[in-house]
Amino acid sequence: MRVLGVDPGLTRCGLGVVNRIDSQKLEMIAVGVIETGTDLALEQRLLELERELTIWIDKYQPDVVAVERVFSQLNVRTAMATGQAAGVALLIAARKGIPVAMHTPSEVKAAVTGSGRADKKQVANMVVKLLGLKEVPKPVDSTDALALAICHHWRGTGNARIAAALAKSASKSRLTKTATRKVSKK
Amino acid sequence: MRVLGVDPGLTRCGLGVVNRIDSQKLEMIAVGVIETGTDLALEQRLLELERELTIWIDKYQPDVVAVERVFSQLNVRTAMATGQAAGVALLIAARKGIPVAMHTPSEVKAAVTGSGRADKKQVANMVVKLLGLKEVPKPVDSTDALALAICHHWRGTGNARIAAALAKSASKSRLTKTATRKVSKK
Repeated sequence: MRVLGVDPGLTRCGLGVVNRIDSQKLEMIAVGVIETGTDLALEQRLLELERELTIWIDKYQPDVVAVERVFSQLNVRTAMATGQAAGVALLIAARKGIPVAMHTPSEVKAAVTGSGRADKKQVANMVVKLLGLKEVPKPVDSTDALALAICHHWRGTGNARIAAALAKSASKSRLTKTATRKVSKK
Repeated sequence: MRVLGVDPGLTRCGLGVVNRIDSQKLEMIAVGVIETGTDLALEQRLLELERELTIWIDKYQPDVVAVERVFSQLNVRTAMATGQAAGVALLIAARKGIPVAMHTPSEVKAAVTGSGRADKKQVANMVVKLLGLKEVPKPVDSTDALALAICHHWRGTGNARIAAALAKSASKSRLTKTATRKVSKK
């Protein structure tokens, strides 16, 4: 199975393509970032993002497109731009009939590092380790996109690693209450 | 000139097509609402919205697509959905090479009623009057879309009505400070 992870953004949209080779092994196929000029009008930036994302999807033919689900941004203007970029990714996938999944940043962190509250550096280091890379891909948006793809591969098959990590900190945060509910449904 | 006004939303997206006949007279060509099922996945809703909006644009061939610019929503989740719906409208227009304009709710109110702080009913009554309709189009999202189209027609040609209305209440709100800056640039 091949997953395209999308860390949505208008200024920088991170992309990472990860294949699953066997139950333990993952392989990075591609990583990159789409940047749209801040001097362009919003609609032109969305169009540019659509064009580039379409090229990526046509080239790498993912089985699933995994998009980061963002709720926590306090700034409505930023939330709008992120939401619009995510919307473009969802729209293209839906148009092509490719299944879509959304994962929150905490789910991604938990899947990759074992803790829903890991910092950026920990996530980046684990991405490097899990994919057998020589160094951390830059910019960070592209590493986040790879982490998202890894998260999807692991959540899709058993989900135990994430559920365990989230359940571990169940008493500490609101996020984890949601996760605990998921676990108890099993 | 023909303007398609779009009051963006995922649950209900208002649409209104308004022609300008002469410097004073406007004519409603079409009004309606696109509704996408709340039971559908987000990506399917965006796809449905894209399909229906494309049909409207192909049918009515607007010279401009005017979209409501929303900043004031405090709820990030709602802001995201509205932003994504607006993004789809902007994207389709950009793809078809149709110019896009964005107006804030206050600009629309000021253009239609003369006051940036008019209520929904006042706006609806003025839309009916200005377009020579027999009754208020329902739901309110469609009336808002017509108001947006009217706003664009009038802002595009002189802008005096809006500038005057906004300047009038300059001392009362933050919004009006922005408007005053616009006026002083002339």
